Amino acid sequence: MSVTAAQGFRASGIAAGIKSNGNPDLALVVNDGPDHHAAAVFTSNRVVAAPVIWSRQAITDGRADAVVLNSGGANACTGAPGFQDAHATAEKVAGTLGLSALDVQVCSTGLIGERLPMPELLAGVDKAAGELSEDGGDAAAVAIMTTDSVPKTAVVSGAGYQVGGMTKGAGMIAPGMATMLAVVTTDAVVDPATLTEHLQDAVRVSFNRADSDGCMSTNDTVILLASGASGVTPDPAQFRAELTELCSSLARQIIADAEGASHDIAITVVNAASETDAEEAARAVARSNLFKTAIFGRDPNWGRVLAAVGTTDAEFEADQLDVSINGVQVCRAGGIGDSRDLVDLEPREVQVLIDLHAGEQTATIWTNDLTHEYVHENSVYSS
Amino acid sequence: MSVTAAQGFRASGIAAGIKSNGNPDLALVVNDGPDHHAAAVFTSNRVVAAPVIWSRQAITDGRADAVVLNSGGANACTGAPGFQDAHATAEKVAGTLGLSALDVQVCSTGLIGERLPMPELLAGVDKAAGELSEDGGDAAAVAIMTTDSVPKTAVVSGAGYQVGGMTKGAGMIAPGMATMLAVVTTDAVVDPATLTEHLQDAVRVSFNRADSDGCMSTNDTVILLASGASGVTPDPAQFRAELTELCSSLARQIIADAEGASHDIAITVVNAASETDAEEAARAVARSNLFKTAIFGRDPNWGRVLAAVGTTDAEFEADQLDVSINGVQVCRAGGIGDSRDLVDLEPREVQVLIDLHAGEQTATIWTNDLTHEYVHENSVYSS
Repeated sequence: MSVTAAQGFRASGIAAGIKSNGNPDLALVVNDGPDHHAAAVFTSNRVVAAPVIWSRQAITDGRADAVVLNSGGANACTGAPGFQDAHATAEKVAGTLGLSALDVQVCSTGLIGERLPMPELLAGVDKAAGELSEDGGDAAAVAIMTTDSVPKTAVVSGAGYQVGGMTKGAGMIAPGMATMLAVVTTDAVVDPATLTEHLQDAVRVSFNRADSDGCMSTNDTVILLASGASGVTPDPAQFRAELTELCSSLARQIIADAEGASHDIAITVVNAASETDAEEAARAVARSNLFKTAIFGRDPNWGRVLAAVGTTDAEFEADQLDVSINGVQVCRAGGIGDSRDLVDLEPREVQVLIDLHAGEQTATIWTNDLTHEYVHENSVYSS
Repeated sequence: MSVTAAQGFRASGIAAGIKSNGNPDLALVVNDGPDHHAAAVFTSNRVVAAPVIWSRQAITDGRADAVVLNSGGANACTGAPGFQDAHATAEKVAGTLGLSALDVQVCSTGLIGERLPMPELLAGVDKAAGELSEDGGDAAAVAIMTTDSVPKTAVVSGAGYQVGGMTKGAGMIAPGMATMLAVVTTDAVVDPATLTEHLQDAVRVSFNRADSDGCMSTNDTVILLASGASGVTPDPAQFRAELTELCSSLARQIIADAEGASHDIAITVVNAASETDAEEAARAVARSNLFKTAIFGRDPNWGRVLAAVGTTDAEFEADQLDVSINGVQVCRAGGIGDSRDLVDLEPREVQVLIDLHAGEQTATIWTNDLTHEYVHENSVYSS
């Protein structure tokens, strides 16, 4: 049910002809209210796509009535003409649905550095508007796929309200494809400022902790819409936990769908002096090509874990570091621990546990191994 | 001639039995003076190998009489016993040659997290001492090789003196192999403080700008020895330029010997507000797996260049960025430039030029593409 699990939302997904293969490539999500509260988190990349520039500005008032998303083109690095395309898309949606253009969020995903085929896209908006339905969430989730092998949706039920969402993105992404988009909806009654706070908190520990290949996109966007249609005002802590659970589910689906990957790796740092330290140390390991190729080769190479942790500013003493891989403590106090021969790296799931012995904070980064298939997917296909 | 091109130096390289395949694995470089001035630069990794801990401390007085280097084992993450091994190695060299152990630098390279075979290593020191010769530089360069396909040496002639050196390290490195070691010698008369200043400056723009896979080693070491045997005190600016030329030659040899690579890539950032900005932006591109796989696939994917530059704190405006690849300006003012079809990526050498339009500073980072062979070398071989 995806983005239409919550009351007050309609959605659709259609083939507008943006993708050359004729697959669905345009999705529309509409919030029928009564509330039109919204929050969003965008890429922190300083080179941002035209739709991000549009949406970031348009959502500053905390209101969004609709989201239009296209796959088949990122509309990034397209200059002023690209921005006019994003603007024209918002105007078209607004005109078709009787909204203000500034209440329309625009998201694009696909190759960077190419203009969108605007005639097809604008005609597609009419078609998508005609197919809007309260059961359209699944069709919308399909229309935003690029190299994804499956649509990615999740629903969490609250006390009298629903939180649902969809996302796209493959851990190992294809040439020039901007990484991830997500739309989350709820029929809970939550004001925009609170929505923003909850969303930033949830994204921080979910999407922002999925680091498949360390490459930050120009288009990443997570939008949260609240219709208030349930009439229920949720307990803030409860709602935040549910939103985090939903975002984590979507983020894990991205990692699990990394087509080039043969292992899903959870890198958990414990006993860090701060959560930032824990995240920095875990991310350094997640970005080590040497560590990631070792896991692909089923080699529990803990020396590469330490070499990566050693590049960070996290608080630790090198002679106190402990590392376990899939439950075997291969490194103890910065030196040789139990035999690496005891580690079983056949399963797809890999757990790396790093103890900094410097405090009480924890963070987990999810990543994949670096495989021949990753190199293949990102080099062979023309773009 | 490598480290014995300058007067006052003897060297040797022998097979001590540290490597299981019987290849040369122990090198000795001795400075016979009259000066015994020395400077060194070590890895900035906070997890450092035992020999780095020893050598870093031993060289603080600006004197080194000998350097002993072994391949076949990094002696990293080996705890207190590993440090005792490094210390014992220095003592053995000192006893054999009649030196103080604190004037012996120790370097190791190979797998992290394994103890060295000390009986073989200590017996090897006797053998290496017996073979020391003024022509031994080439043998020493062979003995420090790990996955290197060729020994790496360079000589620059100054006005009445010589600067020579050797290094090891392959751009795409094999499992657990600590990355690079280098020994540079000169018979010029230069005091230790000046040597240190010159070496730091030269390393900054040579070895530290070779970034094959973004993975910082626990063992990286560059040692500079000055015998003063020529009796010539060089012009400081001239000497610094010669030393930089030598270090750059050695660093380029490391990149060129990246066995897994099919392209050598020079990423040059121009018109940056500071040299730090230029280096940060170039390094971000050099570390983008998406960019590196694109070059492997002969795809001039400039969107991935901009996406990488966008993650940095360098001063620039996104709509002013220009990017040229092998002479074709594929990105102009942050948008679409000349056709990417004009770019020829068949040659091994690739030039990426990024103009930040924010100042007058420049930096070049040398890197390689990300290939199937990189994944193969770093995953398939057991370690």
